[in-house]
Amino acid sequence: MEDLKQIFAQTKKAFDLPEGMIYLDGNSLGPMTHASRARLIDELDNQWSKKLIKGWNESGWYLLPQVVGDKIANLIGASKGTVTTADNTSINVHKVLSAALSLNPERRVVLSDSGNFPTDLYVAQGIIAKLNETADVPYELKVVTPETVLDAIDEDIAVVMVTQVDYCTGRLHDMEKIVEKAKQLGVKTILDLCHSGGALDVQVEKLDVDFAVGCGYKYFNGGPGAPAFVYVKSSLINDIQPVLTGWMGHDSPFAFDAQYTPMQGIGRMRVGTPSVLGLTCLDAALDVWEGVSLAQVRQRSLELSQLFIDEVAVRCPDLKLATPLNPDERGSQVSFHFDEAYALVQALIARGVIGDFRMPNVARFGITPLYLDEQDIIQAAEHLEDVIKTRSWDCPEFKTKNAVT
Amino acid sequence: MEDLKQIFAQTKKAFDLPEGMIYLDGNSLGPMTHASRARLIDELDNQWSKKLIKGWNESGWYLLPQVVGDKIANLIGASKGTVTTADNTSINVHKVLSAALSLNPERRVVLSDSGNFPTDLYVAQGIIAKLNETADVPYELKVVTPETVLDAIDEDIAVVMVTQVDYCTGRLHDMEKIVEKAKQLGVKTILDLCHSGGALDVQVEKLDVDFAVGCGYKYFNGGPGAPAFVYVKSSLINDIQPVLTGWMGHDSPFAFDAQYTPMQGIGRMRVGTPSVLGLTCLDAALDVWEGVSLAQVRQRSLELSQLFIDEVAVRCPDLKLATPLNPDERGSQVSFHFDEAYALVQALIARGVIGDFRMPNVARFGITPLYLDEQDIIQAAEHLEDVIKTRSWDCPEFKTKNAVT
Repeated sequence: MEDLKQIFAQTKKAFDLPEGMIYLDGNSLGPMTHASRARLIDELDNQWSKKLIKGWNESGWYLLPQVVGDKIANLIGASKGTVTTADNTSINVHKVLSAALSLNPERRVVLSDSGNFPTDLYVAQGIIAKLNETADVPYELKVVTPETVLDAIDEDIAVVMVTQVDYCTGRLHDMEKIVEKAKQLGVKTILDLCHSGGALDVQVEKLDVDFAVGCGYKYFNGGPGAPAFVYVKSSLINDIQPVLTGWMGHDSPFAFDAQYTPMQGIGRMRVGTPSVLGLTCLDAALDVWEGVSLAQVRQRSLELSQLFIDEVAVRCPDLKLATPLNPDERGSQVSFHFDEAYALVQALIARGVIGDFRMPNVARFGITPLYLDEQDIIQAAEHLEDVIKTRSWDCPEFKTKNAVT
Repeated sequence: MEDLKQIFAQTKKAFDLPEGMIYLDGNSLGPMTHASRARLIDELDNQWSKKLIKGWNESGWYLLPQVVGDKIANLIGASKGTVTTADNTSINVHKVLSAALSLNPERRVVLSDSGNFPTDLYVAQGIIAKLNETADVPYELKVVTPETVLDAIDEDIAVVMVTQVDYCTGRLHDMEKIVEKAKQLGVKTILDLCHSGGALDVQVEKLDVDFAVGCGYKYFNGGPGAPAFVYVKSSLINDIQPVLTGWMGHDSPFAFDAQYTPMQGIGRMRVGTPSVLGLTCLDAALDVWEGVSLAQVRQRSLELSQLFIDEVAVRCPDLKLATPLNPDERGSQVSFHFDEAYALVQALIARGVIGDFRMPNVARFGITPLYLDEQDIIQAAEHLEDVIKTRSWDCPEFKTKNAVT
């Protein structure tokens, strides 16, 4: 326990956190590390401005998607060469869903659940609408409740696609059971790690999932709109004919062939020119993981989450826990139902306690051990208690919605 | 003439150019502006690190794709609200090609040419291969020579897709004729502006092209892997059902609806969370255009290009011009054939004269008036003459190819 505290006291020092802020929204956007700042300034002053086009070779830009992909692979239980950074999560979902459907050509049903992050469902709707303009047999998306995903897996399903941790409630899918049944029935599996990568001890290879995607800007602290990543099981990757075909996924990008030939391996999941600034920033942010394991992060996350749940239960009886109480059934966030959750979150933000609101009535708090400790958790609970007791949320300025809420 | 020189002497000051370098590769990667550097450092020190998640509202991140899109619209002859930044060029080609095919459902042929940038052809191959897995009537890609595109447009063609300026030779398509014939025969048009946006006085609305795409990192100087952009004719945009569907193109992203409903207008061409660092950098880089018009840039580009062609013709008879001599038929680069072009370019780079090599034997030099003047052009020609006269390219170190060439 003391060892863990010491480890995380060290990781906290890696972050540039604003004075007086308790940041419980790292599940939406991670904070800046000192390493990212230094690396970006070096990128401006010594790489781009000095080397210009030569930076692709001399500053290692060309290799960055794979270098950063390999670092992320190491954090999600994947082998080197099975993960690449690329684009954003929605686009990566498109790539792997299209690939999964092609690998299961006799089947036309995509299974997902109503707890999935909406963009994943939108991606499925977009692919299906396009294919159905000309398809001989139409595709369909079947959306069930999170609790009935397992039951709904059958031999009609081409692919089951779920997000491991519910973005709103923090509920955790039992992926072992889902993948096991899917494999038995010949169903391809896609796992969205946006709310679990960097928070849970994810083991994509042990789990034997076919595809995984995730983002770089939440628990990996890669900065706003950081590049996302995509994993493909190594036995499948060279069987995939990518639907998003671009020169950065070509076997020989600078031969300028007229014919697309996919790169061997995970590189074929890349498309166009990647954001070098975004990759650089994410690359440096990942340094913080050198002295800490995901198992340690998970242990500490559960301790701090339990502390928050316990403190809030005593102090704020009006808040109804939306997150499963059983630690095995939740990710790394704690959410509460409250009729005036939007105003409540705004009132907390005004005090420097940053959580966020999710429709329709959820106040959501991310628990990120890399830069949060017991003192932060208790202070946040104290503020929450005070905001509710004094009804300081009940004020017009906290009820006016922002563009991004 | 003197006026133009003065204008461009001013714009040159906006750039942080390395001492002693003559940079003739802005058609591959533009240099850093002082404004971009300052803006990114502000982004790190005062926005991301201080505001964290609040930056989406308070730092204007959420609006950036449209703010920057509108700035680019102004530089390519498009109205406000018809251009958005998004993703990279390859992915944007995918979006508009898919949309163009859907708008012409009875036709199955994509027409392009062998002078198109290969990634555009790869995108077409990827879409077609995917659709043909299930399509009732197969799609096909027809690739003709650049000179025969106009002749090849007929009523079987669903969409004609060309890059305005050839990345290798600098040859310029006669877009008026192509679009006119396409319109007469009900063919949709896609124009790739990667090598013309920010270099020529592009007028997409006057031209009446249906779709256009382009990149942010060449003549717009947005930094390595800067966000790309996409234009859709305003009368078409709300008829398009995007194939790349993500929450950032949803009509109400933060309602978290289960059903995708595209945003009204060009916003539906957005997909996932955009690179804020990339957008910020590009946004600031576009400030340089405030005091200069594309017509002025084009005039100056032709003057400097002619100067370079004339100087090289006299000094280097071994170099064979690959770019059309007629100014109306070329973009903003000058390319030469030379058997040992790769080594030649490396020898020039070693002297601080940065051009680039393109397969199989082309030495390519970008003419970018924003930061190049007569003195740069003449000095570059002098170096070229000396490298050839002394055969200093004929040395093993200049013949070893880099990963990115």
